[in-house]
This record gives sequence, C-alpha cells and structure tokens, in this order.
Amino acid sequence: MSIAEPLQRAIDEFSRFPGIGRKTAQRLALFLLNRDSEDVNRFVQSVIDLKSKMRHCSLCFNLSEHEMCSVCENPKRDRSVICVVEEVNDVMAIEKTHEYSGLYHVLGGVLSPLSGIGPDDLHLKELLSRVETGEVKEVILALNPDTEGETTTLYLAKMLKGLDVPVSRIARGIPIGGELEFIDEATIGRAMSGRMSLL
Amino acid sequence: MSIAEPLQRAIDEFSRFPGIGRKTAQRLALFLLNRDSEDVNRFVQSVIDLKSKMRHCSLCFNLSEHEMCSVCENPKRDRSVICVVEEVNDVMAIEKTHEYSGLYHVLGGVLSPLSGIGPDDLHLKELLSRVETGEVKEVILALNPDTEGETTTLYLAKMLKGLDVPVSRIARGIPIGGELEFIDEATIGRAMSGRMSLL
Repeated sequence: MSIAEPLQRAIDEFSRFPGIGRKTAQRLALFLLNRDSEDVNRFVQSVIDLKSKMRHCSLCFNLSEHEMCSVCENPKRDRSVICVVEEVNDVMAIEKTHEYSGLYHVLGGVLSPLSGIGPDDLHLKELLSRVETGEVKEVILALNPDTEGETTTLYLAKMLKGLDVPVSRIARGIPIGGELEFIDEATIGRAMSGRMSLL
Repeated sequence: MSIAEPLQRAIDEFSRFPGIGRKTAQRLALFLLNRDSEDVNRFVQSVIDLKSKMRHCSLCFNLSEHEMCSVCENPKRDRSVICVVEEVNDVMAIEKTHEYSGLYHVLGGVLSPLSGIGPDDLHLKELLSRVETGEVKEVILALNPDTEGETTTLYLAKMLKGLDVPVSRIARGIPIGGELEFIDEATIGRAMSGRMSLL
C-alpha cells in the first residue's frame, strides 16, 4: 500500500524535526488526524503565530514578542551583569533556576570553523558595544563546555580583555546527584582544579 | 522570565502530542522558529491538508484520500481474506511486511469497558456485513495481544461463529531476535502451546 499523499506529506514534515524519527512522525500525524478540527486549527494557529509574532530582542537577541524581551524590559533586573549564552533555550534553562537576576546576551551559536561559523556570524560586535558603554560591571560566560563552546569562551575572553570588566565563566564540575565513579576524567579534573575553599 | 506568549502557546500545543514532554515541545517550537518562513508554511499546509483531505475508507475504515482506500481499490488484492486490526497504524505496520495481499477491516479501537468503549463504538456491524456477503473465505484477527485486544479477539470469534468462515488469529510467540532468557513467561507459554511441527 502506498500511504495516501496528504498523510505521507505530513509524516515527512514531522520527520524533519530534530529527534523525531519516521515512527514517531507517523504517530504524531495520526494523532492530529484523530483530533477535532478545532484542536488542529488551534495547533496550526499557534505555529503561525509563533513564526509571525516572535522576533529577537534588539538588545540581547533573546526571543521576544516586542522590540525588547521581557528580561531586558524588566526594571528589576540588574543591568550591570551580562550573561553570555549560545542560544535562546540556554536563557530559558538559566531563568528556570531563578538564581540569576542580570541581563543576557545570546550569541546565536558558537564559533565552528568546520560548519563555517566565524566571529561575524555571531552577535559579538553587539556584545562589545554593550560592554563598552561602561554600564556593565561583570560578564559571565555560560557557553556549553564542549570543544566549540570552549573555543568560543576563549575567543570572548580575549575579545573582552582590556575593557576593564571582570569576566567569569560558569563552573565546570560534578553535576548535582552525580557519582564520581561514573563521571568522566575530564570533568573530575575540572572539578578538582576548580575546587572551592570551605574553611 | 515569563516566556513570550506565542512561544509558550506553541510549546503547550506541542506538549499535547503523545510522548512529547515539555523539553521536547520546547525544542520543537524553537526549531520551527529558526526555520525559514517557507518551511514553516509548508509544514502548516501539510497539517491543514492532512485534516481536510483525509477520510476513512467506506469499506474497511482505513485512511484514504478517496471514497475507497488504496488497498480496497487495488484489483490485485485478494478480496476473499479480511485482516481485522485495531487502528490505522496497524494496517501500515502489516503493509510494510509485504507479506499480506488481502483486505483489511479497521475496528477503530478495542472493547474497553473501563474507557466506556463498547461494541457499538467499533466497526463491528460493518465487519459482519462484509463477512455475510459470502465473498469472504478467511478472517484473520490481528489485534494487539494485550488484555483488551484479547477480549476483543474473543468477542469477534464469538460474533463470527456460525457464519461458516474460517477465523484465525496471528501467532503470539517469541519475537524475531528475542532471547528466551529475557522474554516474559506468558509469551514463552504462548510460544510453547503455539508450537508448529517441523518434521
């Protein structure tokens, strides 16, 4: 049997999503097919709105419905601290901790010569301008601790050197609940060298 | 930070899909957001078409773009055999094997008193009519071997009794590649009692 074309096409479209294989795509398409038209319309409308109403914050490049994102617009946030992250979902992850009250700067990726992503493809100039205003008292680099994230962190450190602003990076170490026995050596090494005094 | 409303709504909509949690939903929504408008439009259109163009085959209740599905319309299929399945995706799973050349009958579910699904909620009358025409020489019951599938299989067997048509059910046993050591007792028991003679 050839699967009917509209169904096949919907399955193909769902398969394009990251982490969604053929079987899952089929399950998602059939699920939609079994829902009320009203539900499907609401889903479709949410996708259309997502694409048409969301844009990037003009200051930090976080996602926003307006010119400025809700973080940058919030008068309660500490405007003297900037946390630099790779992507928008990193902002969401940090916000969920409720431990950070400064602003963000979303680079929009990491340096990756292999994928052809160089400094000009990231929002580096904009970060530099923000720091150069003199309003900023600390820059926290919160990139992922993988090869590309490390490279980008070093690049940023070099770029910000001489601007007379303290630059820190988030700690690399044993994750909460992790067991030393099962943690890779590189992480344990970082945890050792990054130890903090207790007494 | 409150996530911007259009993004939050899209994440909520994606979370409604079966097997999609909050984190995956967020990943899917952000993925869409990063795609070209053209790609997103194509996705949206595929969902709209899926819902508007697909319907159920008037004979077997398989999914179809037309009055009859591609299986029922195919003159090469053996019209004397009907394979009874629970849902449309079961048809797809069996078609993928290329081992079956008869027709199907999609019940649209299984008997489930707890969920309030009784005989009138399934396409049982229609199955009976098809078998009663006398054109059918065999009915194969291919429901899932769980409690509700078993109950429905027994119900169908009883319903079809006396119609002078052979009724079989697909074999339950050790899956290909499975290891006896790790298979549950019920399955091994079925495999034993359902053994087939070799010599």
